[in-house]
Amino acid sequence: MATTEALPGRGIRSVSMTDGSNGLAMNLPDFSGKVPATCFPTSSALAASWDPELVSRVAAAIAAEARAAGADVLLSPGMNLKRDPRGGRNFEYYSEDPLLTGELAAAFVRGAQSTGIGACVKHFAVNNQETDRMRVSAEVSERALRELYLPAFETVVRRAKPWMVMAAYNRINGAYATEDRRLLTGILRDEWGFDGVVVSDWGAVDDRVRALRAGTDLEMPSTSGASDAQVARAVEDGELDRSVVDVSADRLIGLAHRADAAGPAPAVDADAAGELAVEAARRSAVLLTNRDHALPLTRGQRVAVLGGMAASLRYQGGGSAAVNARTTPEPLAAALTAAHGNAVPFAQGYRFDLDPDTPEAEALIAEAIAVAEELDVAVVVVGLPDAAESEGFDRADLALPASQHRLIEAVAAVAPRTVVVVVSGGVVELGEWRGRVDAILFAGLAGQGVATAIADLLTGAASPSGRLSETWPVRLQDAPSFLSFPGEAGRSVYGEGVFVGYRGYDAVDRDVAFPFGHGLAYTTFEYESMRVVADAADGTWNVDLRLRNSGRRPGREVVQIYLERPHGTRAAPVRALAGFAALELEAGASGSASISVPRRALERWDEATGGWVLDPGAYRFVAAASSRDLRLGTAVDIDSAVPMQPLTPESTLQEWLAHPVLGPALLERVSASDDSGRTIGMLTNPHALLMIGGLPIRRLAVDAGSALTDHLLDDVIARFAPQDSTT
Amino acid sequence: MATTEALPGRGIRSVSMTDGSNGLAMNLPDFSGKVPATCFPTSSALAASWDPELVSRVAAAIAAEARAAGADVLLSPGMNLKRDPRGGRNFEYYSEDPLLTGELAAAFVRGAQSTGIGACVKHFAVNNQETDRMRVSAEVSERALRELYLPAFETVVRRAKPWMVMAAYNRINGAYATEDRRLLTGILRDEWGFDGVVVSDWGAVDDRVRALRAGTDLEMPSTSGASDAQVARAVEDGELDRSVVDVSADRLIGLAHRADAAGPAPAVDADAAGELAVEAARRSAVLLTNRDHALPLTRGQRVAVLGGMAASLRYQGGGSAAVNARTTPEPLAAALTAAHGNAVPFAQGYRFDLDPDTPEAEALIAEAIAVAEELDVAVVVVGLPDAAESEGFDRADLALPASQHRLIEAVAAVAPRTVVVVVSGGVVELGEWRGRVDAILFAGLAGQGVATAIADLLTGAASPSGRLSETWPVRLQDAPSFLSFPGEAGRSVYGEGVFVGYRGYDAVDRDVAFPFGHGLAYTTFEYESMRVVADAADGTWNVDLRLRNSGRRPGREVVQIYLERPHGTRAAPVRALAGFAALELEAGASGSASISVPRRALERWDEATGGWVLDPGAYRFVAAASSRDLRLGTAVDIDSAVPMQPLTPESTLQEWLAHPVLGPALLERVSASDDSGRTIGMLTNPHALLMIGGLPIRRLAVDAGSALTDHLLDDVIARFAPQDSTT
Repeated sequence: MATTEALPGRGIRSVSMTDGSNGLAMNLPDFSGKVPATCFPTSSALAASWDPELVSRVAAAIAAEARAAGADVLLSPGMNLKRDPRGGRNFEYYSEDPLLTGELAAAFVRGAQSTGIGACVKHFAVNNQETDRMRVSAEVSERALRELYLPAFETVVRRAKPWMVMAAYNRINGAYATEDRRLLTGILRDEWGFDGVVVSDWGAVDDRVRALRAGTDLEMPSTSGASDAQVARAVEDGELDRSVVDVSADRLIGLAHRADAAGPAPAVDADAAGELAVEAARRSAVLLTNRDHALPLTRGQRVAVLGGMAASLRYQGGGSAAVNARTTPEPLAAALTAAHGNAVPFAQGYRFDLDPDTPEAEALIAEAIAVAEELDVAVVVVGLPDAAESEGFDRADLALPASQHRLIEAVAAVAPRTVVVVVSGGVVELGEWRGRVDAILFAGLAGQGVATAIADLLTGAASPSGRLSETWPVRLQDAPSFLSFPGEAGRSVYGEGVFVGYRGYDAVDRDVAFPFGHGLAYTTFEYESMRVVADAADGTWNVDLRLRNSGRRPGREVVQIYLERPHGTRAAPVRALAGFAALELEAGASGSASISVPRRALERWDEATGGWVLDPGAYRFVAAASSRDLRLGTAVDIDSAVPMQPLTPESTLQEWLAHPVLGPALLERVSASDDSGRTIGMLTNPHALLMIGGLPIRRLAVDAGSALTDHLLDDVIARFAPQDSTT
Repeated sequence: MATTEALPGRGIRSVSMTDGSNGLAMNLPDFSGKVPATCFPTSSALAASWDPELVSRVAAAIAAEARAAGADVLLSPGMNLKRDPRGGRNFEYYSEDPLLTGELAAAFVRGAQSTGIGACVKHFAVNNQETDRMRVSAEVSERALRELYLPAFETVVRRAKPWMVMAAYNRINGAYATEDRRLLTGILRDEWGFDGVVVSDWGAVDDRVRALRAGTDLEMPSTSGASDAQVARAVEDGELDRSVVDVSADRLIGLAHRADAAGPAPAVDADAAGELAVEAARRSAVLLTNRDHALPLTRGQRVAVLGGMAASLRYQGGGSAAVNARTTPEPLAAALTAAHGNAVPFAQGYRFDLDPDTPEAEALIAEAIAVAEELDVAVVVVGLPDAAESEGFDRADLALPASQHRLIEAVAAVAPRTVVVVVSGGVVELGEWRGRVDAILFAGLAGQGVATAIADLLTGAASPSGRLSETWPVRLQDAPSFLSFPGEAGRSVYGEGVFVGYRGYDAVDRDVAFPFGHGLAYTTFEYESMRVVADAADGTWNVDLRLRNSGRRPGREVVQIYLERPHGTRAAPVRALAGFAALELEAGASGSASISVPRRALERWDEATGGWVLDPGAYRFVAAASSRDLRLGTAVDIDSAVPMQPLTPESTLQEWLAHPVLGPALLERVSASDDSGRTIGMLTNPHALLMIGGLPIRRLAVDAGSALTDHLLDDVIARFAPQDSTT
């Protein structure tokens, strides 16, 4: 366990920090292994619940085990946006959408901190790849930063008040995150009001003095005094103001006091935690397809389980977050036998370590076929091997092993029904069999309860309700960042800008395998009515929805609200998630949900004025069952005043003429001058404007003989500009 | 006509410059219009010829008219890469491929300068959009700059020695092109040996002193002495070295001397130029589809021409390049009547100024149908209106007017055969009718000879041989730069990197409407054999090909050589154009082509070492009829030594271990140390390496107790690095 230094003489204790994203991941003192702990679904899997309350309970359970083990701070949640499906730590993150990420991460922090532990949100910020992660510069526009990569952190900091924020390894537009004063102090503290400690990711400090000045209070791990000496020297040399050191020291002392005031650790109930792990695993699964009610399995059906992974289900990823699970999942065939009541035979079907072209591999498939063709339903379990998903490297592709495709194709050709279960921490490319098999259940990396959960879901003892928190493209090449991820030569250029995930697939109108927000249940829901009401006080909008469970089984529907903003001249996402809620309804029952959409969801970041802008115009609220399954829509017109961009001689003619004050003033002054005719003609001729409207007006002013002179421009700016300028 | 200042006292004349890309575009002295001139196809159209010799003849004809009108310098060719199909000046440029662009632009310069005029290549560099063109910064990687945006300029400067280079409006990675010393002096002069004058684009100078210092010799237009005064002041203040002014002044004097030495202007033969314009127009057309030999038309067929554009064919684009054509194209129906021998009726079918939902618009279609259904072949002419393509703005989309889609659909439903002729300066999205009509001929903006040329091609008096110099995507959204073009807030991020045009479509394996290099003839060609031979002396490879005209008519085949480089770890285009040649063959005849592929085509730009690198490995030369119609392939293995990246403490562990000298030295030193066991274990464990291989080795060295210390690293570098370092 990592610790800060104590100052016993001043009554300041050491603070202990431990990893723990999907369960306590605390190293044993001799680094020979980790403390046993309950292993919950990874964040990627749990995000499919779209359920902040559940995330909060899981976080509290993890935190309770961490406190019992002596930790003061839990180094989680990881909450970076999933920019590209290949991201090596995507399994530790929640979503490609900032709103969903922010809601779930805030819930995690609240749940964890409810036990008296401190949470540490990470990795701040724009830490979206493992390739060259300690040197790479994420080259990202201010708009994408503000609209995509920062909002989830802002939500968490403002609403859940984490004790700590971890500064990331990477650079952002050239500056190391640990040395980015605008980020760590200007935005995080001054704008958002963060009052805790900023800690570096392990080994992320490049220059301790610059990092301290930027706002990195705590460097980890210890450099055995080397960087302390650098700091002392910098203070002596006058290069670093002593007050900078004092402020960070005070924050660390504050952290120790917080830990002191945490109160007694809550009791750990390993059995209850184990049950919660199963509940969470059930809620992490997403039913992707289900043809002709192939699922749930019925009592009389004879079922087989096929696929090597079913014998030892993968349930978490690798790296610092890996948990030494209290129990490991039993083989799926055994779990299914228990849930189904009948014996469920198993055949291996494939092995990761076998070349699929060898006779041994072919024999495994033949054996699986022999089992499958005798029975009613073949459950084929496929997914990625352990070595495919871990901290430290990105995936090269989204492919499943060829042997698994072969097994599915072979089984689907002979089995009366084929159900595929996918086990992975992130998106995989499914084969063409995607549209041909009878059902596909995506289990994620669902923690120690995964076998029981899958068995419960397949047999209908539990009802699937998970929703994808990430788009599944048909092919990796369709991903908006495909051509620029992970960059090269130390730069990763975020060329797709704000078009990450579904925002990108929608912008190019690309077919996807399964859209963001998608997930089936064993029943169906009808969206009956929608009402959108403005709360004039704070700019919030409330969406009231009425739904009916129109099927024959109980179920849980995750209702999603997407917002379509008015079209402007700049490229913008077609729609974006603005809120969500869940309803559990018995068959035939109706119910209501009320979803609050904050003003921020309606705004856009305006680079010209450096702030959030609410455009006037027609907005549309859409109630949807996924980002591509839109059910009801309501249009609202919003009248708002947009701050004018301050004009300068570098502003274009078009920008000048569009300005409500300076435009008319300019034309009036030009008309009043000697050579008005020719210049006014140029400024008001639509075809000429098309050609020259984009020119900075100063460049037009050099045209000798024109009435439009530098002098005239300066005069117009001096007389009229101040009242509109916001800079 | 723009002129430089004369210094009569020193015998230095004024130099006159004029626009002229597809014909002399010289303003009359009172700016009331332009001098009449022969109007040739735009560069975009002429590029379809893939014929440097033809481009050279056209350039010579333009230059002759320019010299006759008193010009010393022709401000062309425009030769920017077509990054995005929406680029507003794409009609003035050649291609999305740098090799094709470079060959054609070099031919233009040679042809023009053969008349004693000077050519001025433009717009240097990375000037790929009109939106915000005077302020926008093209944010582009060094690799994309070197592999895509600069090579065509390099080819022209090295091989054709233009008198002038025009610095562009835009910024590149923040710096104005006119103020970019690395570009204008470091690369252009020092690397490529340019010895002429750099002129600014009109109004492109932001700061005259900085521009002069960077290498912009001549600012245009005149600022009536204002910037001369700035320069004088800067010299007086010691801010600008006087020698900088002298060097640029000497270059301008040199330009005047070159103009003096130009010799007598060649005679202008307007009739011959007009015939050349027709020849060039024929060679500019690309036959995109031709089902069941729908084309050429046969003698007995009764043919109609439909579509308002056929009455006044568009033949050039708008802006500074627009020519006051000596003759304008006759209506296509008249030209076709002459070529076909039978009366060819015409119906308007659509009008640009009519809403397609009005009764008038519907009446036009009804009228066209009435004509079409009585005859054998309907030739429907569609395309973009004048206002759609011009300097000054980019296109918002690639759509044809809705009225044209309706006309084609309606006609195709009743006419026995439907042939579509497309008239535009760039790519348009065709409708689903693309696969249903009998033939599609893309005419481009083909200059004053366009009507005659189309008639000749449709009737078979001439044989189509043009090839697309730009990919036609199925939809604009498929374009690699779709999400990032044209940027916002002053930045245009080239997120697609080197994946421009077919390099991008191929990298994502995206279906296209018509691939780069595509074009049909009235005959077919068989690729019989291919031989690839290295020229050891200079690294050039020679490709010898044997082809046979396997059809029944004579024809011209443009043979393309694409190169597939060995796979490395970085993302790279699947294949890239490395050479091309054309063969004219009679029906049944065979012939040979020999194509030289320079060493550069095999190399890649290496950002780590800042130079060109020839990777060892398996290369493949492919002979093809288009970028997606590959006919023959030959693999060659190349053995070459790649310069080692110099290692530093910031280099990753992986990079150290991969180094042939420092890697072993490091391991040896660590092994020899006290605590060798643990450290060596870490450095050689494959799983650990996956996790920590990407860490800068200096970050590993802080781990106290490890044998890997800063001291050890410094020692290894000091002892072994110099012999490998190239920095």
